[in-house]
Amino acid sequence: MKNRVITISREFGSGGRTIGKRVAEALGIPCYDNELLLKIAQESGFHEAYVQEAGEYAPGGLLTNLFSHRDSIPNNADYLWRIQYKIISELAEEGPCVIVGRCADYILRDKADCLKVFIHADLAFRAKRIVQVYGERAESPEQRIREKDKRRAAYHRFYTDMKWGHAQNYDLTLNSGTLGIDRCVEIIKGLY
Amino acid sequence: MKNRVITISREFGSGGRTIGKRVAEALGIPCYDNELLLKIAQESGFHEAYVQEAGEYAPGGLLTNLFSHRDSIPNNADYLWRIQYKIISELAEEGPCVIVGRCADYILRDKADCLKVFIHADLAFRAKRIVQVYGERAESPEQRIREKDKRRAAYHRFYTDMKWGHAQNYDLTLNSGTLGIDRCVEIIKGLY
Repeated sequence: MKNRVITISREFGSGGRTIGKRVAEALGIPCYDNELLLKIAQESGFHEAYVQEAGEYAPGGLLTNLFSHRDSIPNNADYLWRIQYKIISELAEEGPCVIVGRCADYILRDKADCLKVFIHADLAFRAKRIVQVYGERAESPEQRIREKDKRRAAYHRFYTDMKWGHAQNYDLTLNSGTLGIDRCVEIIKGLY
Repeated sequence: MKNRVITISREFGSGGRTIGKRVAEALGIPCYDNELLLKIAQESGFHEAYVQEAGEYAPGGLLTNLFSHRDSIPNNADYLWRIQYKIISELAEEGPCVIVGRCADYILRDKADCLKVFIHADLAFRAKRIVQVYGERAESPEQRIREKDKRRAAYHRFYTDMKWGHAQNYDLTLNSGTLGIDRCVEIIKGLY
């Protein structure tokens, strides 16, 4: 366990990505978020947008189940998962870093000395924040949040069999809405 | 919201009580744990041991349901809950303090400026710790832990309709097994 990796899972709009970036900057280590997406896209040959989308959907819709058989013919989602698994394992091997999302906490569970963090906040805080960060959309911010969270939770459960957002799966969980993003950064930095 | 109260929910054996005491000592504010039990016992007329036991059991066993009707004839559990509710509300009114267990996070949800904390740790850490703190018993430490946690979760759910140990219910959750009790104390103290 020579490396120290910080994994950040987060509810949509909670500022988990911003917190990850700021912690990494303060510690002078890389933060993998979009960079991870790029690496997976390059290695898989799929388009970035597809990789991003796939990371938010649990495989196993009706068509997937009809036309693919796990353990026999892998589907795209399985194929992407394997590449993601490999890339995250390699990144953790390379040196200390922050990894945002993509089930890194689960992938590295026996491989690296990880600090596992989950960031969440109440709906009102997140709704306000996603409009600031990502701008207005046709759907309401609350709808976008519910949809995204549902997908992330389903994706996480499908591949890890762990409950997303359950305190017991993390070293610490922080409410960025009540504590504030600055204090979340301070606490995580202090634990490194 | 003139007072600042820290509520600590905790898995059995995670050191939540110790952390609460140490945070309170460091901040020079009272910590209510056994003191709370005594107050409830005094006000209700029930024996301390009974009050303690009742706080670990969700009411609603077969006999309770047969012979009592919620909203009409209150049973002992309902009666104790009301006293507990009143005492915790009064303590929060009196001034800053730490309150361990007893659904204080829920009781004070709209009443006081609370920092809501949940402390947990893995089974091995807790099993070792309960033998050190409470000594050996006939049942294995793992059995004692499973039993206690199950009761606390059921009690919490019965009265609060919230999921015990779900990150979203707290400002922060800490794994005392991986972070260590000292660091948990430091983080909570730093947030006050």
